[in-house]
Amino acid sequence: MQCEGSIIIMATLSYTKDQMNSRIDELQKKYDEFKSRGLKLDMSRGKPSPEQLDLTMGLLDCVNTRDGYTSKDSFDTRNYGLNDGLPEVKAIFAPILGVDESQIIVGGNSSLNMMFDFIAMAFSRGLLGQQPWALQGGVKFLCPSPGYDRHFAVTEYFGIELITVDMTPTGPDMEQVERYVSDPMVKGIWCVPVYSNPEGIIYSDDTVRRLAGLSAAAPDFCIMWDNAYSLHHLYNTDHSILNLYDEAKLRGNEDRVVMFASTSKISFPGAGVAAMAASPAIIAEVRRRMSFQTIGYDKINMLRHARFFRDFEGVLSHMKLHAAVLRPRFETVLKTLETNLGGKGIAEWNSPQGGYFISINLLDGCAKETVRLLKEAGVVMTPAGATYPYGKDPRDRNIRIAPTYPPLAELQLAIELFCITAELVCLKTYLNR
Amino acid sequence: MQCEGSIIIMATLSYTKDQMNSRIDELQKKYDEFKSRGLKLDMSRGKPSPEQLDLTMGLLDCVNTRDGYTSKDSFDTRNYGLNDGLPEVKAIFAPILGVDESQIIVGGNSSLNMMFDFIAMAFSRGLLGQQPWALQGGVKFLCPSPGYDRHFAVTEYFGIELITVDMTPTGPDMEQVERYVSDPMVKGIWCVPVYSNPEGIIYSDDTVRRLAGLSAAAPDFCIMWDNAYSLHHLYNTDHSILNLYDEAKLRGNEDRVVMFASTSKISFPGAGVAAMAASPAIIAEVRRRMSFQTIGYDKINMLRHARFFRDFEGVLSHMKLHAAVLRPRFETVLKTLETNLGGKGIAEWNSPQGGYFISINLLDGCAKETVRLLKEAGVVMTPAGATYPYGKDPRDRNIRIAPTYPPLAELQLAIELFCITAELVCLKTYLNR
Repeated sequence: MQCEGSIIIMATLSYTKDQMNSRIDELQKKYDEFKSRGLKLDMSRGKPSPEQLDLTMGLLDCVNTRDGYTSKDSFDTRNYGLNDGLPEVKAIFAPILGVDESQIIVGGNSSLNMMFDFIAMAFSRGLLGQQPWALQGGVKFLCPSPGYDRHFAVTEYFGIELITVDMTPTGPDMEQVERYVSDPMVKGIWCVPVYSNPEGIIYSDDTVRRLAGLSAAAPDFCIMWDNAYSLHHLYNTDHSILNLYDEAKLRGNEDRVVMFASTSKISFPGAGVAAMAASPAIIAEVRRRMSFQTIGYDKINMLRHARFFRDFEGVLSHMKLHAAVLRPRFETVLKTLETNLGGKGIAEWNSPQGGYFISINLLDGCAKETVRLLKEAGVVMTPAGATYPYGKDPRDRNIRIAPTYPPLAELQLAIELFCITAELVCLKTYLNR
Repeated sequence: MQCEGSIIIMATLSYTKDQMNSRIDELQKKYDEFKSRGLKLDMSRGKPSPEQLDLTMGLLDCVNTRDGYTSKDSFDTRNYGLNDGLPEVKAIFAPILGVDESQIIVGGNSSLNMMFDFIAMAFSRGLLGQQPWALQGGVKFLCPSPGYDRHFAVTEYFGIELITVDMTPTGPDMEQVERYVSDPMVKGIWCVPVYSNPEGIIYSDDTVRRLAGLSAAAPDFCIMWDNAYSLHHLYNTDHSILNLYDEAKLRGNEDRVVMFASTSKISFPGAGVAAMAASPAIIAEVRRRMSFQTIGYDKINMLRHARFFRDFEGVLSHMKLHAAVLRPRFETVLKTLETNLGGKGIAEWNSPQGGYFISINLLDGCAKETVRLLKEAGVVMTPAGATYPYGKDPRDRNIRIAPTYPPLAELQLAIELFCITAELVCLKTYLNR
């Protein structure tokens, strides 16, 4: 069942008040029983499981005293130099990001850090010769929601006003986006175009083309294109989408597109490699900033990735191993949701084909209380509201489920408890209206 | 011979004009001969030699599939978490920086990046509740010179006005510093307190105490204390200095002190670990920024360092191995300078007891031309002037020699050519006055 912002009609509306109270008693008993078990389960972050990390253990061994530390063109990766990254790693990221290698910068272990630094650059120095955002004042950013809390937080850190844009099954509501960008103070938009966080939405061709062709009033408008999950398919279907950079270039808007990716959910979250791509003009500005900021990122770790994955094809086959670990987890959650909440008219959720999350909407006003009760019973969820700007879900209904980290048996337990708690809160809320 | 900003008196002043012209011819011939050899030597950056990097090769092997990836307290370093660093690496940096472990943040592979981010934080968000520097406007920073070009560049990037402060054999000229800080727009000072870059100066106790007790008008004044070379002794004498943090705390000024260190010149420049230390209040502000900026730095690489060095003592004994590689290089340069330029009254230089550089002052107006001619003959030096704010040495006399990278034989050649070129330029300049 795809979330479409529809209004949920309670199927239990047909219950008598007594029937409803007796169901509440039943659920409360089950909840109390779970609570007494002293569970300690975490479904709060999109964190790979140890099983997944074990897939990449070879990475630890492939740069060593025996096999040496020099890159293909005999560069000593131990020393300073190669500020914008090892060529063989650029070659891996180029097809991932869909641009020429010359437009790639390989960074440290965090694409979030590269996004933060990009916004920081626009804020303190300005983009493409425009005034720094710090001096323009009153800068705004579009936040398709539900979305990724850490994206919103980056712009919030710099005092940028966050504007909520609704998500649709094909991406951000483009009518809203097109209306907002006529304001020159609207400087950009956050996007997770493939398997969006948290809804798993895949941007349609129409969405990509309309983003590429926006009549943005701001000359320093930027599309923050975080392609965090572009290779993270759960099934055999590759849901790759239209290339935003190419579409923007066709329309003369290529300087607006800033794309990010990382191996955080390919190799190791704590020790992966991140990269960004943009137009030659934007890449030159980022390179310039980097020449002040660092003498280069960890090239030995880049070399590890180049040796372990060999090439883009190597990454693709590795992702199939991840999918095999993740599929049962997603399916367990979806099956349990369907069994326990299906047809009750108190919740709707997505069935993602990839990515790291399942997004669920409860009856309005029920998300916070559900997350609170779950925490009391030992199950930590992402805070309710986190998927909206300023952490405030206007309808208090969206909860993000991150099913990747817990072992399958624990996940099963946690989701059962989730269903009990959600139904309990929804019925109580409905009765008290 | 320690540089003290004295005015060089040409000993060759006693030459007749003919004698001087014949010496110039002789030097020109030697220079041309060197030039014809097509040398390719680089003495431009403080870059460890491959010989030094070989000392740390064990680092590549000590986190592997066999020995695992968990920290002492069983943390899985492959995954997200531990935003401010692995405890065992904090324990190594605590005695290096002279503070409690709780005041340490371990970062990525670059302390320069941590300094940049700190200045960026002050610029965009402000320090200790003060207005962001971006909004205060007209912010200034003190730059003891000759100093480290990349420090000055960080502040220059943010449009901060750089004020040159003279260096003395005991550190920055504190009378000048004390005068400047009465201006509330002067927000800080760059310091390399042990084996300063480039002069190898060690701050005296008096300098440290006066820095700790400055009557700074700015409530958001910060001392950027880059202790890059604190363990980098060339000889057996440990030239550790007074603890600035303790001295500042005694005077209630601890929130002004921000200290940095890294293993770039202990393990690998391209894949080391950096750290910073400051007061609890400042560390809390940096941690907060980091919670927006990243989900944590590379903890596997931190674990490698913890395992390879074990503890602070392990780092100290490792530094003796570096010293053994570096001593002959420094001594070669100093001996060649003494043999070829000693007593001629055209140059003065320091004899550092540690660090990465030898700083030389030529006759006024001779540095740029010397560096230019050296480049033409295939020897790349740090650009003349780089050791001063905006790359402008007011007397055009200082040149930074970085003797660490070239093999000994090449270094010998390069320094011989340096002496020939420097004398040639000085004599010509003198004659043309």
